[in-house]
Amino acid sequence: MARWRPDAAKRLTEAALDLFAEQGYENTTVIEIAERAGLGKTTFFRHFPDKREVLFGGETMSGLLADAITAAPAAATPLEAVAAAMDRAGREVFTPARHERVAARRAVIAANPELQEREALKGLGLIAAMTDALRRRGVPDLPSSIAAQLGALAVKIAYDRWIDAAGGEEFGAVAQRTLSELRAATALV
Amino acid sequence: MARWRPDAAKRLTEAALDLFAEQGYENTTVIEIAERAGLGKTTFFRHFPDKREVLFGGETMSGLLADAITAAPAAATPLEAVAAAMDRAGREVFTPARHERVAARRAVIAANPELQEREALKGLGLIAAMTDALRRRGVPDLPSSIAAQLGALAVKIAYDRWIDAAGGEEFGAVAQRTLSELRAATALV
Repeated sequence: MARWRPDAAKRLTEAALDLFAEQGYENTTVIEIAERAGLGKTTFFRHFPDKREVLFGGETMSGLLADAITAAPAAATPLEAVAAAMDRAGREVFTPARHERVAARRAVIAANPELQEREALKGLGLIAAMTDALRRRGVPDLPSSIAAQLGALAVKIAYDRWIDAAGGEEFGAVAQRTLSELRAATALV
Repeated sequence: MARWRPDAAKRLTEAALDLFAEQGYENTTVIEIAERAGLGKTTFFRHFPDKREVLFGGETMSGLLADAITAAPAAATPLEAVAAAMDRAGREVFTPARHERVAARRAVIAANPELQEREALKGLGLIAAMTDALRRRGVPDLPSSIAAQLGALAVKIAYDRWIDAAGGEEFGAVAQRTLSELRAATALV
């Protein structure tokens, strides 16, 4: 079997999720993950610095949200640009086909404080990436920070709502509704 | 010299700050910190789980902000309660007498990614503590989260402004002005 595959990172993440669900995060080794994916340990470490990181896809999400904010129409308000980023996340990351895997990932993270810590830091990375992207659009510092924080809060709340929703509503729609609720709630503080 | 002292945690933090400034965070051991404070290693670990934590004072700041929010008048809006907490932080933590030490602490943290990570996680702890305190006042979930996020952002921005300000303005005043600016900026997102 060829060791090089263009989708190695994705295969490793899927193998890891399966193994974590079957036998627990702590009981799973990097070698087992690589073997399950039909790859070697060296390939694993070419894609991820450690076992934790296999669940966090490098900087994919930060980059995707920042790119979408940059690509939003020039006339869009800060929150409209953030809403466009939510939509992109729904089309490219939190897709209907991945719903079950995202739910499994959340369960693995919820069971492990070390993973929760990594997730919290990734959340801060999201905020920083969105803040920078908004500033590059010419939005002043404070509104950039606030819109990015509201965006990150919307992602976090919508992530749970989307996983828990039975109806199969798209992530982008859930996130945009959440963002509108947050926008309205700023008047209540 | 007696090993038990009521102010051991404070002495250890001050000794650590001095040593970090003199010889760097990485080059300083827990034993050196304890010795400089006139205490033993065992005492150190009774107060702090590791070397990093000596700069973060356990849960002091989270608890202080949450207590102040709880103690705010019943008629206070969420942001007024948060503003009262900023004032408390200025009276009890970021006092004029500690200005120089807080500046030294910031410099140590800025030079070390491991400490920056710990500080980022502590920031998330602040948000969680303030959110919970606001909910216990009967504020609904979303406004509680938003007010806590704005409060944490105000603490972060005001911390830099207060350290960098030459005039010696009190932290509480700087933070409350920052919070007002953030409140106004929510209209611009």
